[in-house]
Amino acid sequence: MIETALLVVIVICFIALILAAILARNLLSQDEGTPKMREVSDAIKVGAEAFIKRQYSTIAIIAIVLAVVIFAVYFLTGQQSLAMYTAFAYIVGAACSAIAGVVAMSIAVRTNIRTAAAAQHSDGKALDFSFRGGAISGLIITSMSLLGVSLTYIALGADPQTTPFVILGFGFGASFVALFAQLGGGIYTKAADVGADLVGKVEAGIPEDDVRNPAVVADLVGDNVGDCAGRGADLFESTAAENIGAMILGVALFPIFGVNGILFPLVMCALGLLASMIGILTVKGKDGADPMDAMNRGYYITAIISAVFLFFGVQWLLGSATGWMYFFYAGLVGIVLSVCFLRVTLYYTDHHYRPVKEIADASETGAATNIITGFSVGLETTAIPAILIGLSLLISYWFGSMSGIPNGGLYGTAVATVGMLMVCAYVLAMDTFGPIADNAGGIVEMSGAPEEVRKRMDSLDAAGNTTKALTKGYAIGSASLAVFLLFNAYMADIAKLTEKAFDVVNLASVPVFVGALLGAMLVFLFASFAIRAVSKTAQSVIGAVRTQFKNPAIMAGTQKPDYAEVIDITTQGALKSMVLPGILVIAFPIIIGVTMKYEALAGFLMVATITGILLALILNNAGGAWDNAKKFIESGAHGGKGSEAHKAAVVGDTLGDPFKDTAGPSLHVLIKLLATLTLVLAPLFI
Amino acid sequence: MIETALLVVIVICFIALILAAILARNLLSQDEGTPKMREVSDAIKVGAEAFIKRQYSTIAIIAIVLAVVIFAVYFLTGQQSLAMYTAFAYIVGAACSAIAGVVAMSIAVRTNIRTAAAAQHSDGKALDFSFRGGAISGLIITSMSLLGVSLTYIALGADPQTTPFVILGFGFGASFVALFAQLGGGIYTKAADVGADLVGKVEAGIPEDDVRNPAVVADLVGDNVGDCAGRGADLFESTAAENIGAMILGVALFPIFGVNGILFPLVMCALGLLASMIGILTVKGKDGADPMDAMNRGYYITAIISAVFLFFGVQWLLGSATGWMYFFYAGLVGIVLSVCFLRVTLYYTDHHYRPVKEIADASETGAATNIITGFSVGLETTAIPAILIGLSLLISYWFGSMSGIPNGGLYGTAVATVGMLMVCAYVLAMDTFGPIADNAGGIVEMSGAPEEVRKRMDSLDAAGNTTKALTKGYAIGSASLAVFLLFNAYMADIAKLTEKAFDVVNLASVPVFVGALLGAMLVFLFASFAIRAVSKTAQSVIGAVRTQFKNPAIMAGTQKPDYAEVIDITTQGALKSMVLPGILVIAFPIIIGVTMKYEALAGFLMVATITGILLALILNNAGGAWDNAKKFIESGAHGGKGSEAHKAAVVGDTLGDPFKDTAGPSLHVLIKLLATLTLVLAPLFI
Repeated sequence: MIETALLVVIVICFIALILAAILARNLLSQDEGTPKMREVSDAIKVGAEAFIKRQYSTIAIIAIVLAVVIFAVYFLTGQQSLAMYTAFAYIVGAACSAIAGVVAMSIAVRTNIRTAAAAQHSDGKALDFSFRGGAISGLIITSMSLLGVSLTYIALGADPQTTPFVILGFGFGASFVALFAQLGGGIYTKAADVGADLVGKVEAGIPEDDVRNPAVVADLVGDNVGDCAGRGADLFESTAAENIGAMILGVALFPIFGVNGILFPLVMCALGLLASMIGILTVKGKDGADPMDAMNRGYYITAIISAVFLFFGVQWLLGSATGWMYFFYAGLVGIVLSVCFLRVTLYYTDHHYRPVKEIADASETGAATNIITGFSVGLETTAIPAILIGLSLLISYWFGSMSGIPNGGLYGTAVATVGMLMVCAYVLAMDTFGPIADNAGGIVEMSGAPEEVRKRMDSLDAAGNTTKALTKGYAIGSASLAVFLLFNAYMADIAKLTEKAFDVVNLASVPVFVGALLGAMLVFLFASFAIRAVSKTAQSVIGAVRTQFKNPAIMAGTQKPDYAEVIDITTQGALKSMVLPGILVIAFPIIIGVTMKYEALAGFLMVATITGILLALILNNAGGAWDNAKKFIESGAHGGKGSEAHKAAVVGDTLGDPFKDTAGPSLHVLIKLLATLTLVLAPLFI
Repeated sequence: MIETALLVVIVICFIALILAAILARNLLSQDEGTPKMREVSDAIKVGAEAFIKRQYSTIAIIAIVLAVVIFAVYFLTGQQSLAMYTAFAYIVGAACSAIAGVVAMSIAVRTNIRTAAAAQHSDGKALDFSFRGGAISGLIITSMSLLGVSLTYIALGADPQTTPFVILGFGFGASFVALFAQLGGGIYTKAADVGADLVGKVEAGIPEDDVRNPAVVADLVGDNVGDCAGRGADLFESTAAENIGAMILGVALFPIFGVNGILFPLVMCALGLLASMIGILTVKGKDGADPMDAMNRGYYITAIISAVFLFFGVQWLLGSATGWMYFFYAGLVGIVLSVCFLRVTLYYTDHHYRPVKEIADASETGAATNIITGFSVGLETTAIPAILIGLSLLISYWFGSMSGIPNGGLYGTAVATVGMLMVCAYVLAMDTFGPIADNAGGIVEMSGAPEEVRKRMDSLDAAGNTTKALTKGYAIGSASLAVFLLFNAYMADIAKLTEKAFDVVNLASVPVFVGALLGAMLVFLFASFAIRAVSKTAQSVIGAVRTQFKNPAIMAGTQKPDYAEVIDITTQGALKSMVLPGILVIAFPIIIGVTMKYEALAGFLMVATITGILLALILNNAGGAWDNAKKFIESGAHGGKGSEAHKAAVVGDTLGDPFKDTAGPSLHVLIKLLATLTLVLAPLFI
């Protein structure tokens, strides 16, 4: 007999999938634009599919090796029964995560052309199409994450007290694939972007997305494989990890809530998915209006409906406790935090506010002061988010404690995390909208569409930049909360394995302190590898583009440049350079754990997480601020396009590219990977 | 009766002071060069003295307020007897730290002119003078730190079991002044440098240190107030903090070693001072030789003699334990660590190795790739140092435990710290040599000396850049170890105050985790303020210089620019912008401690320290690497001076300026300030 709660989850997921199918059918029936547009779009599709295929083949090899390792760890530590189950869950998680990435990418490469076609007539329609494209991804990814966890739970026996520990493997599989997807895609997209810009815009002085630039198709491919596939896999595993972490915490409360406490996170995410569907359907583009208005309205609607659902969900599943209202308050903390994170990110990356203006001002005195100011803005952006995360943890812990339930405090933080992740599907829709609009803009530009069409796409493209920055803020905020759950799940897991209490991670002991130091270091080292990979690959791209530019026929526009060559170079560079950092972050914690044991590893994990959150904020927000400072100058400030200030701002923007689209988002995934990795391989560390 | 050990310390300090006096007398009797040189040198002296005077007046006001706070904290928490003593120790520490800074600066502004004069005839002599100038500072500062702690210990009663807790105030006073000295000086020096370079070198295309540039004197003043006074105060408080921390740990071992265990760190530092004197005297410049050779040889001699002294010191003072040899091994770990840190820093900042070469290569494709690569190098430089620090702590802890003494492990880490700080005086000599050589180079350039004299100074200047980078590596390495002692001192202090054991800082508890998150955040926020201050002040400098350049008589060289105007702008900007971050880092931990209590504050402190160490490494080493990549290109690589690669490298170098000379070194001081602050104000947090 399947629990009612589980049934609700599964039904909502199917509704979401049906809605996604309807939206997709409708979208695919739309006009595909001029033959020239189709030509560009096809080139993007071919490039993206080729990269994804090669990328996932590489990932599959490493994934299989790791599956064997996981099996061996459990088998050799005398837990034969768990060995098969955990390895199975891992493989399912990895496969689902890969599918999530492929789905996001496939939809994006089909939506971009239709958005471009729609932009010929109406900017409202162009917004509708691109946002719907994002929504399809958001719905499919979120429901796959929920279905994946739910069905694995059922497949592995649905024992409320033991199964949550086994489906950990699912979370690890998901993070594992997400790391490589985000890292490889992130390197690809920014190497192509940096390469295209430096030679095209700066050296040759031709516009962005100019058809003569051999790197321009690779740049557009990058939006799909980096932003769409990457963030899809990222938020897929955020929901998966958070659900599993909260389920494990629910096990401790089994005597009070029974299975309801364990299934609670799944149900709430499903209800959030329902709220997101409503929110998505309210978004309607209007010609001449600011696209952000419609999307922001949809977001607030989603958040409010989520809060209502939260109330009923808590009452239904946790109502057996007299203090259940406190859990509702804790959940509200999460929803409020998600709104706050978006506002703070907006403040730091929008040109209406002080930080971006300051960077634009500093561009007047050259690239150096532009970068110094931007970097100091990036560092500054850690302050309010850290205080917000800290307050959310303290307040939701306090609410949980007020419920009067033993260990209720920790469960309060779990409910807050659940609250924050309820709006996930909507946020994903907003996020994927960005690269689709970006791509459509590229297609419009390359197909030589008239000026007015380009103008329409420009405003959509600008909105896409904003939503991309905002959703990164959301992703890191929700990751911080989710990982805090996973710490506690790790400690519960170790306690279960060692059969003695493990509730102290003593930072004052030498091994734990050293573990913590090395954890923080690993984050910086990983970011170093990610950033360097972009620089190295971009330099190969630059070499190839320069060589092609020496051909006068290409510059004159009479001969088509060899797009495939650049796509190939970028693909190879990205794949080659994703392997080392990927293996590093898997091998290093294992070494620490095996040599210094579980408590030092906990210190490692926690401080790596803290550093990872803050560094991701720095990289994402500095990058976003540089980008928008450049756009602000391009809109006419400080001398506008072509001025010295603009040249300086372009340097800052280029530096920001690997910050915000390679290293930053990869860090989101990294911190979750570290947490799920330590959980799954826990038997090694005791 | 004064202990023999204490007597040894005092006698060695007086020997060091006498040697410093002899060296100074000899140096001051040297030729002061041409009238033109004297003119420049006098301008620097006047500017530096004016800044220091205004800076220390500002610091004095904040220091007095804080003295009242300290007194009140102890008085109102019912520890009337401690109130006066702690406040007294604090004032003495602050005064000594201020004197250390003033001494370093005063000697530097007198040595630069004599070095410039010597360079007219011999580069060996120029090295001798500038290194001797540095040595005088190093000897005075180190012996003042030792004498300060020793005499305060005697003045406050010399009770081995209680006095170490009271002289904590001395350490806090020292860190407090050091923070403002380093921060204000760092902002001053880099705002002037960036401003001078951007308008002079980049916009107007005139050489560095050109006499027509109105910012050039401010730039030279900056070397003295930032590098000399700043690092002087920094290492002054490193030795003070480390000695006090180790003395407090010695209290726990009082039953075994008696007063010897408590005085051990002071004696070892004194013996290290003796070793440094010998090392200093072996440094002898040779015409045409690489100046680094002589200084490196002196360093190795100092390290080896220190190791020998270490053996006898351990035997003498800790010989009552059968396993005393293990403490000797632990001390060796510290000495070896200091050598390793220098080697690693050299690898990352010298153009003979991969990292700097990579940055120079990346300059070919412009400023953006130069910066991306340099930043990724900076991030990478955290890896080996973190592993080295971790290993040193683990190994010295293990050696200490092997001694068979209860709590010996922790004392082992204390001995390692002592070992690392034995070479401090020598390192300070090498460090202060850098800005003196830099200044002398500026004087030679501005006085219009012949080409061969400039060439001589160039090689000395390059060596100065290297030693400055190396000693920053040493400073951060020794700070990490010293702060680890202070954590344990903090825990011992809290245990004493609460009269119950405090040996667990549970990172898994919500308040401690939140404290840790906020601790890491504070470090980033502080760095943001420091970097932004440089950018803001530099922009004012740039404005003033541009206005003066509009006067054709100045550009033609027929009218002297108004140096004083730029000095005044820089002074005001630096003083104004040092106050906010300074107060922030004092107020924030107090708020955390008061609201979240001592355990959360411990988490705050430890993770702030970890983040501070790593961020300082990133900033220092990235800055050093950019600087040397530029110098490497200037030496003729990648097209040499004036090439596109050179322009790109200049942007990277400019960005690196506030990284390596403002934010980085200020972080060294910050982490010690946080540790001494929490210690002194501990009664507030229980």
